Amino acid sequence: MNTPAEKFTAPSLAMDIPTLIEFLAREFPQVAADFRIDTLEADRIVVRLRVGERHLRPGGTVSGPNMFALADVAIYLAILSRLGPVALAVTTSAHVDFMRKPAAHADLIATARLLKLGRSLAVGDVLICSEGSSEPVARASMTYAIPPKRG
Amino acid sequence: MNTPAEKFTAPSLAMDIPTLIEFLAREFPQVAADFRIDTLEADRIVVRLRVGERHLRPGGTVSGPNMFALADVAIYLAILSRLGPVALAVTTSAHVDFMRKPAAHADLIATARLLKLGRSLAVGDVLICSEGSSEPVARASMTYAIPPKRG
Amino acid sequence: MNTPAEKFTAPSLAMDIPTLIEFLAREFPQVAADFRIDTLEADRIVVRLRVGERHLRPGGTVSGPNMFALADVAIYLAILSRLGPVALAVTTSAHVDFMRKPAAHADLIATARLLKLGRSLAVGDVLICSEGSSEPVARASMTYAIPPKRG
Amino acid sequence: MNTPAEKFTAPSLAMDIPTLIEFLAREFPQVAADFRIDTLEADRIVVRLRVGERHLRPGGTVSGPNMFALADVAIYLAILSRLGPVALAVTTSAHVDFMRKPAAHADLIATARLLKLGRSLAVGDVLICSEGSSEPVARASMTYAIPPKRG
Repeated sequence: MNTPAEKFTAPSLAMDIPTLIEFLAREFPQVAADFRIDTLEADRIVVRLRVGERHLRPGGTVSGPNMFALADVAIYLAILSRLGPVALAVTTSAHVDFMRKPAAHADLIATARLLKLGRSLAVGDVLICSEGSSEPVARASMTYAIPPKRG
Repeated sequence: MNTPAEKFTAPSLAMDIPTLIEFLAREFPQVAADFRIDTLEADRIVVRLRVGERHLRPGGTVSGPNMFALADVAIYLAILSRLGPVALAVTTSAHVDFMRKPAAHADLIATARLLKLGRSLAVGDVLICSEGSSEPVARASMTYAIPPKRG
Repeated sequence: MNTPAEKFTAPSLAMDIPTLIEFLAREFPQVAADFRIDTLEADRIVVRLRVGERHLRPGGTVSGPNMFALADVAIYLAILSRLGPVALAVTTSAHVDFMRKPAAHADLIATARLLKLGRSLAVGDVLICSEGSSEPVARASMTYAIPPKRG
Repeated sequence: MNTPAEKFTAPSLAMDIPTLIEFLAREFPQVAADFRIDTLEADRIVVRLRVGERHLRPGGTVSGPNMFALADVAIYLAILSRLGPVALAVTTSAHVDFMRKPAAHADLIATARLLKLGRSLAVGDVLICSEGSSEPVARASMTYAIPPKRG
């Protein structure tokens, strides 16, 4: 009675971890060293913010803008991994819920997935935990415009 | 070096499916018949919008406000299931990304989880699919204020 | 030293209030009677939800989904008023902060403005008050995809 | 027929610009020098991000995390200006729409207002423009938890 589920083929990756890292280092030299890709799969990426003094607020916890940056980089890399290095996705909106104080001086681990990768719009969400904890510190939804030409 | 993960005990349920349904029917008689609880677990609830003519836009797809209502009810029931019927959580914010057109005339299935259930604030997120499809139609983040006294 | 402000010409209206109302009645017959356009200017629209029993939650206040619908209609009409009736803008995201309980049985007044009306993306925000009060009940940000061809 | 508008007394300020700046410099020494308060009124604050090399992405435009930080600081200062220096408001959610590329090397000007300053929750919104332009670069909604005791 209902429409059948759309055929679902697992997407393939256009870039691997070393290529993504290299791209990030070239395009965003100011911040690339802050991040590490722990895991890359067709529908999931795990990105780590290597927490240093410059990310911290008094009390030793990571600041909001740094969590925002982590969520943004994670989805950006997920889009790149699927579309390849020619894509220049632009962040059009970000929604972040801050739920708990991050653990002091712990790396932050962002697990991100793409929920939609359309011709002109990509949507992803991200869960951020302090390393060693399973309770989420923050959750983000990010939207990106994909430029018309990507070839 | 890092702070240890917080001890995590699986939360227990204060209300089961029939009690939740009864509560909904009593408190929200205008809309209760629209919804069905397919699954209830300690950290996950699946709520179905039984799609009827009144939910549809021209073309036979469910309107945005009805998807909003589904997300809201799903998290509201998740909070109730944990705190019991005395809690009168109030929606303080909602963020919804609409990603695909729902399948025409198909029920909508919302899978919701609580990411935080604090003393004064609850946060949850919801993924909505058309029945029979695994591609998400919408994704929502909802925030609720929990009244100070809940006993 | 800074880049000069972009030249700003006040936008002109492609549809007036009666034409917008007629369009709404034809395309969304289920809900059109709920709304009235109080004011239409090039950069601002005021839309009223004529509150009736069917919009109310127990206690006599308007439900969240109805406030969502009001915000959505207000920005949708603002886009139409600028692009004309051929445009079929699609809501891609909605963010709503619910801040106060609406006054019981009062109409809700939404004041909306377009912040961006690009070739493929429109962004607007909305402030909702109960009639007769200046304290906002809710605030919404809405995003729309504009279909490639609009002729 | 409708409930009367709530009595509205213009709120008074608990801190002025020099006191706010001093507080920021003491509590957030890493970032305080980035910001300047251009205007402070009871219901509006204008905060400037003094753009320097470290805020820029390739191409000379301010990065998303820096716009996020500007919106966050603007509302945080607005709350402080009303509650005084004892308040330690915590950001609970942020929603940002990025609408246009900032002008290269121009300061960013954030105009912020508090829409709600309740006992436990504050909500504000922010419009960000490049200096010298009236077209908004970004728009943000921010929510803060106010700690129970503020004395």
